[in-house]
Amino acid sequence: MPGRNNKARKWPDPVQIQLTGSGGQGLILAGIILAEAALKDGFHVAQTQVYGPEARGGASRAEVIIGSRPIDYPHVERPDILLALTQEACDKYIAENTRDSVVITDSLLVSAVPKTSAAVSKLPVITTAREVGREMVANIVALGALNSVTGLVSWPSLVEAVLDRAPAGTAELNKKALAAGRSLAVSDSRE
Amino acid sequence: MPGRNNKARKWPDPVQIQLTGSGGQGLILAGIILAEAALKDGFHVAQTQVYGPEARGGASRAEVIIGSRPIDYPHVERPDILLALTQEACDKYIAENTRDSVVITDSLLVSAVPKTSAAVSKLPVITTAREVGREMVANIVALGALNSVTGLVSWPSLVEAVLDRAPAGTAELNKKALAAGRSLAVSDSRE
Repeated sequence: MPGRNNKARKWPDPVQIQLTGSGGQGLILAGIILAEAALKDGFHVAQTQVYGPEARGGASRAEVIIGSRPIDYPHVERPDILLALTQEACDKYIAENTRDSVVITDSLLVSAVPKTSAAVSKLPVITTAREVGREMVANIVALGALNSVTGLVSWPSLVEAVLDRAPAGTAELNKKALAAGRSLAVSDSRE
Repeated sequence: MPGRNNKARKWPDPVQIQLTGSGGQGLILAGIILAEAALKDGFHVAQTQVYGPEARGGASRAEVIIGSRPIDYPHVERPDILLALTQEACDKYIAENTRDSVVITDSLLVSAVPKTSAAVSKLPVITTAREVGREMVANIVALGALNSVTGLVSWPSLVEAVLDRAPAGTAELNKKALAAGRSLAVSDSRE
């Protein structure tokens, strides 16, 4: 059922998403926002964060499962959609992908994508976040790009979920970041 | 390794915790707080929330796994520790327990605990939250009680994690709720 925006593709129900990179890239918050957007769309959600005491700098992973029915088993077994914002994350998690998965990597931080039969989009997420104004919105740029590529949730719900979680005074910056991420992927898919 | 406070009991590493009840009882926030307290103590953590669009009123479940090494498999297979704040949650999740588990239920909302070989503490979590001032701090009372019974995390870390997440103006209420929960379980274990 997720994928109401996406004419081209029907996702499994539930659909499994992994957001991976390094601590400090805000992927845990991105997972929470994606889960909350899906809830607003009326889906059932499971959302997992895995972290260590070295959170900033170490590896970071968030998982979101979105379905039309209650999620009984909240662990991602095989991601249908993988975001990998570092080379380390890409190397580690792409192996778990098989064909039919969609992978989004950062074109600045991921130089070599391991051989895979997944559909890979290399997008300048980090660079775009810097251009928008602050690298710390890379997670929001990434969400915009991911939702453009996958059509997982509705844009109004995603905007609302981003703004619900935006720290005071950063609403405009975050809206700009989401929009920049969104057009990033649209322009990519036109290539 | 978790359980540094607990002289009587050594938990498996990692230790698996399920917090269950109904939406609106704040169990998802309780899971986040417990995870953040464990991080402050230097542990690795995985933390999962499962929810549906009917969040308020429907069933709610949060899972936390705490270990001394990175958590590879973030799904609770068998809870070592189960908090059940409603009869429905108690009925549903206690079956997954086996001997050696610890179960904490609310003495007001859970009238009948299914037959189990787990160690069960029935504690007046909801009633205490009302006495402290607001039923909405039942999740914090529950965390205090749970940590008293289990000794999972250090008290300074738990207090800090509660205050990090307390909405503006509620720090004192939340500290009082945590302390009330803590003494609840201590007095229970003296009976």
